[in-house]
Amino acid sequence: MHKLLILSRDADEYKQLIGAAHLPDLEFATDPEESEILLGEPKLIRDTLPMLPALKWVQAIYAGVEPLVDPAQRRDYLLTNARGVFGELMSEFVFGYLLFLEKKMLERIEAQKSHYWQRNDSGVLRGKTIGLLGVGSIGAHLARTAKHFSMNVRGYTKSSETSPDVDEYFHGNDILRFADGLDYIVSVLPRVDETTRLIDAAFLNALPSYAVLINVGRGNSVDEAALIQALNEGKLAAAVLDVFEQEPLPSEHPFWDTPNLYMTYHTSAMSYPEDLTKLFIENYTRYIEKKPLKYVVDFERGY
Amino acid sequence: MHKLLILSRDADEYKQLIGAAHLPDLEFATDPEESEILLGEPKLIRDTLPMLPALKWVQAIYAGVEPLVDPAQRRDYLLTNARGVFGELMSEFVFGYLLFLEKKMLERIEAQKSHYWQRNDSGVLRGKTIGLLGVGSIGAHLARTAKHFSMNVRGYTKSSETSPDVDEYFHGNDILRFADGLDYIVSVLPRVDETTRLIDAAFLNALPSYAVLINVGRGNSVDEAALIQALNEGKLAAAVLDVFEQEPLPSEHPFWDTPNLYMTYHTSAMSYPEDLTKLFIENYTRYIEKKPLKYVVDFERGY
Repeated sequence: MHKLLILSRDADEYKQLIGAAHLPDLEFATDPEESEILLGEPKLIRDTLPMLPALKWVQAIYAGVEPLVDPAQRRDYLLTNARGVFGELMSEFVFGYLLFLEKKMLERIEAQKSHYWQRNDSGVLRGKTIGLLGVGSIGAHLARTAKHFSMNVRGYTKSSETSPDVDEYFHGNDILRFADGLDYIVSVLPRVDETTRLIDAAFLNALPSYAVLINVGRGNSVDEAALIQALNEGKLAAAVLDVFEQEPLPSEHPFWDTPNLYMTYHTSAMSYPEDLTKLFIENYTRYIEKKPLKYVVDFERGY
Repeated sequence: MHKLLILSRDADEYKQLIGAAHLPDLEFATDPEESEILLGEPKLIRDTLPMLPALKWVQAIYAGVEPLVDPAQRRDYLLTNARGVFGELMSEFVFGYLLFLEKKMLERIEAQKSHYWQRNDSGVLRGKTIGLLGVGSIGAHLARTAKHFSMNVRGYTKSSETSPDVDEYFHGNDILRFADGLDYIVSVLPRVDETTRLIDAAFLNALPSYAVLINVGRGNSVDEAALIQALNEGKLAAAVLDVFEQEPLPSEHPFWDTPNLYMTYHTSAMSYPEDLTKLFIENYTRYIEKKPLKYVVDFERGY
């Protein structure tokens, strides 16, 4: 029998969903010592790693696995992360906020408070150009939604050019040419060394002043001081930030009161047990059939 | 030569766009008397009808042509309206507002004002059920966008069942069964006798209390008093109203201060000269080739 330990605030829901699937040769572990498989949140798993002598496989329920790829931690097990499940949720979030801004929803609400019939034009997504920093499974889904809304799509990647919905790819030093003329710029980049402060003053200056920046990747990719300056000086129309260098954001951080900055507290794509259970069942089936697992993390690369 | 008169607040833009197309045998009219073709807003055209002895064809730039199908007006010309151009814009509007509500954008903004890291769950579109009152070209586009977001789609129509993106169709007296269990209900119905107060107290009571109503059709389809009561009593989660029985809405109307009611002042799908010029060129080409025009209005039916 394979013994599974679940480390998540939703552990009861996971046990119910996985139990109902009656997976062959699988039992819930009652003791970390005997646990061969772990399913759960990267931080909780990291704190438990020293107590797991029988560990062979960890299925993380998030896409970001920074606590586990930290070089100070053991790496003698197979680590898989959550991919393929967040694209739809990220599309809802990103296009929801772009439409919130284009349709001037706050202005309409303010007009209503003063009983004012406010017929200002709305903006449209159709025909606009979106730039995606990172085009993995989430970026590819964003590209597909952008095409549904008749938009132009640019992608900036390390090297891959796999999404059919991206009109033009950019790499390496071409980042300022990528930024030039974008209406919207969305980062889905993971936290690794190469992504740190990729969105810096030079990048922000290369964007048009009507551009909207959305960060649903990781906080390290934004130079926070440069972004505050760009927003204060009107060099950028708006920023929607779901992630930050430090989370929760300290209450004295200037972001809270920066104009045209919308914060969403790392809620852009929640990890739903129904989604993750499906992924776990698929990977567990591969595991017992000794087939390669899906979404294996490269500890060196970091994702 | 065919003489074209343009009656729109965007007349200069239309002249420029149509002039640039160099259409054969077409001239701009300098006098209503000589005008054979009219392009413009239904209300302005109605006021000009008595002065147009040479009139043969009117291309309306809106979908709604109530002023022209009024039985008191002349009907001795061909009337075409604007269809096929508003679906994309309506999708942006409708799904923008559904996402605005699901992602709790106002709550997030309020939390930011008090520097509060607010990690409440967001709602999702995925897996929800949307009901479309009316599935013409706009409704079909909404259905397609709903499918892009992995939603279930019900359609209520007079008889047609033409959209491949509608999972289940309802007609006639089946309207309460159509309403049962809907997460979202969107009306795109035109103003005709049969649509008047279709959304009445019985219909609103048949909806779940978590349902969201969006009206981007015409104001006559909503029983306004019943809707105010439903919102005041929490029988409906929210309503987004773009259209009203009377527009502009009188400043003493209770809608302005009804809880969870969002007003958008008939801005959901603006009429863009670029879109309408394309449609005009297509129909003009058919007109001079003596082929049937697109989107001919049936004066009796009203749309």
